[in-house]
Amino acid sequence: MKAVVFNGPYDVSVEQVPDPRIENAGDAIVKIVAAGVCGSDLWTYRGQANVAAGARIGHEFLGVVTELGDQVCGLAVGDWVVCPFRFSCGECDFCTSGLPSSCVNGGFWGREAIDAGQGQYVRVPFATGTLVKIGDSNSAPDVSLLPSLLTLADVFPTGVHAVTQAGVTKGSTTLIIGDGAVGQCAIVAARRAGAGRIIVLGGQHSDREQLAKQFGASEFVTERGAEAIAAVLELTAGRLPDHVVECVGTAGSFDTALQLARPGSTVGYVGLPHGVTLDLARLFGRNIGIAGGVAPARKYIPELLPEVLSGAVEPGAVFTSTLTLDEAPLAYQLMDERRTIKVLLTCPE
Amino acid sequence: MKAVVFNGPYDVSVEQVPDPRIENAGDAIVKIVAAGVCGSDLWTYRGQANVAAGARIGHEFLGVVTELGDQVCGLAVGDWVVCPFRFSCGECDFCTSGLPSSCVNGGFWGREAIDAGQGQYVRVPFATGTLVKIGDSNSAPDVSLLPSLLTLADVFPTGVHAVTQAGVTKGSTTLIIGDGAVGQCAIVAARRAGAGRIIVLGGQHSDREQLAKQFGASEFVTERGAEAIAAVLELTAGRLPDHVVECVGTAGSFDTALQLARPGSTVGYVGLPHGVTLDLARLFGRNIGIAGGVAPARKYIPELLPEVLSGAVEPGAVFTSTLTLDEAPLAYQLMDERRTIKVLLTCPE
Repeated sequence: MKAVVFNGPYDVSVEQVPDPRIENAGDAIVKIVAAGVCGSDLWTYRGQANVAAGARIGHEFLGVVTELGDQVCGLAVGDWVVCPFRFSCGECDFCTSGLPSSCVNGGFWGREAIDAGQGQYVRVPFATGTLVKIGDSNSAPDVSLLPSLLTLADVFPTGVHAVTQAGVTKGSTTLIIGDGAVGQCAIVAARRAGAGRIIVLGGQHSDREQLAKQFGASEFVTERGAEAIAAVLELTAGRLPDHVVECVGTAGSFDTALQLARPGSTVGYVGLPHGVTLDLARLFGRNIGIAGGVAPARKYIPELLPEVLSGAVEPGAVFTSTLTLDEAPLAYQLMDERRTIKVLLTCPE
Repeated sequence: MKAVVFNGPYDVSVEQVPDPRIENAGDAIVKIVAAGVCGSDLWTYRGQANVAAGARIGHEFLGVVTELGDQVCGLAVGDWVVCPFRFSCGECDFCTSGLPSSCVNGGFWGREAIDAGQGQYVRVPFATGTLVKIGDSNSAPDVSLLPSLLTLADVFPTGVHAVTQAGVTKGSTTLIIGDGAVGQCAIVAARRAGAGRIIVLGGQHSDREQLAKQFGASEFVTERGAEAIAAVLELTAGRLPDHVVECVGTAGSFDTALQLARPGSTVGYVGLPHGVTLDLARLFGRNIGIAGGVAPARKYIPELLPEVLSGAVEPGAVFTSTLTLDEAPLAYQLMDERRTIKVLLTCPE
């Protein structure tokens, strides 16, 4: 089969790799129909993620079950499934207490003997605990829903996690830092949580501003640093927002988050931190909390799935380009150069 | 009147100072009956708090109202009152939303023109918002209750805040880091919250271990650093505790807190941080949250007062010495040298 391989900085290619096969009784083989390229894949692409050349890449996918190990429950060959960006057993203390991202048997795609998500097929360990059924052979999801269903793998639950951890309340003024795919999904999530006013700190990319407003952003601020803080406070007549949601993960974005955090509030964050250290004394006097981390996507998918299937939310609009698996190198280039927000890779027969 | 004055490192004395008088219509004058010496007063005492020589000191007191400004509501001369460690207006957005510690009109005792709490009398600004009545001229609180009532000024609500922010649940295993007065009150608070097993990380002071067990600690660990972590995990058969409550505020204690924090849990903290920086990457993968800060004592007092008055909780046992106001220099010395946990200063006529 074909799969995307990381060869070194700014070099990915589509290569022939061995077809996956059932190795354990809990495995499933899934034929991938659609795969996403994630912002965190760009860390690998840019050579900033300590990933060895030759590694497989990708962790967002949905598709159709083609084979099942003997011990997989609740799934049949032909079922349509979406898969979270980390596999998890569904049975350990963390899985059963709502934190499958800390599953003691789980792991990330593309590491060691585990397939990655940008390819034609994938072996899914712990399929019972990992996969979520989105249709069966007689009721394939409508093709128009595939982009939004694919966001369930990562970016939508990640945005929901940030908003949930920030404790966004109905009618609140919520500040979202970041206009990438996760920040965009956080807008969808904040609107879903009932935020009354959503202010987004983004960059000077009109496509991102337009999408943010489509998703429900009230205002979009393009300044950075001290100017961004001044711009937000001008919008709010000096009142700090009720909630701050951090979807970038840099020292600068966290500095902005803390400066704009309302006393007593919790900064929800989901951007993988790169060199972010917090001086606790900055938080202490104002009772600012910090909550978030790697999203337990598997926990959120069953809750979000009905809303996606009904069309109540349409986070799939974050996919601003659709390419084929063979065009993966172009997909990475477009995302790296910010010429598109997020790419959906289709995997034709 | 007499009041305690900070003269310089390791030098406090009891001096004659001007009697306070009503300056604003919202003021009250309180004759102090009992005052506490706080662990945070020791930062000043040791010259580590950037406090100028000549400053007044102390922020924990209870007593009797002797005079009221024209606009004070709900209080009468002769009322017994306890006062939180920060005064607050009771009317601003933060006061009315449960965070009086961030009151925009409030402040700390002993700064600028504000009296401090170790003296014979004190002018209380915003008395309506600040003071909590604990009895009237016909129903003075029983003298045996005064120590526990005095803990309402600071250490008990501070311990409750740490436990509340950590989200301690019924039946849980809760780790409390610190065996000072706040750590001890956190034990009371964790027991009150229904924790099933309370493990305390303390020092090698048998009086503190004894008090911790009196308050409900299940186990008391005297090791530090890596040895403390090993000792806790040996007690729990390797399982990380459900909740961690940090009551010290040093880089070392926070490092221990993060190493023992269970994925998905929130470290509650109330120790004023001294040089604590957190690498967010340590929190991200495990979804560890941080919550706490300067306790909104005024919010908690009305909730805790009935339990203190009924004897349901007896946090007053943290006062392991009682001295007179004139003996304040000795009180500081005893606390600095850890020869007592906490001193109650009585203020006779």
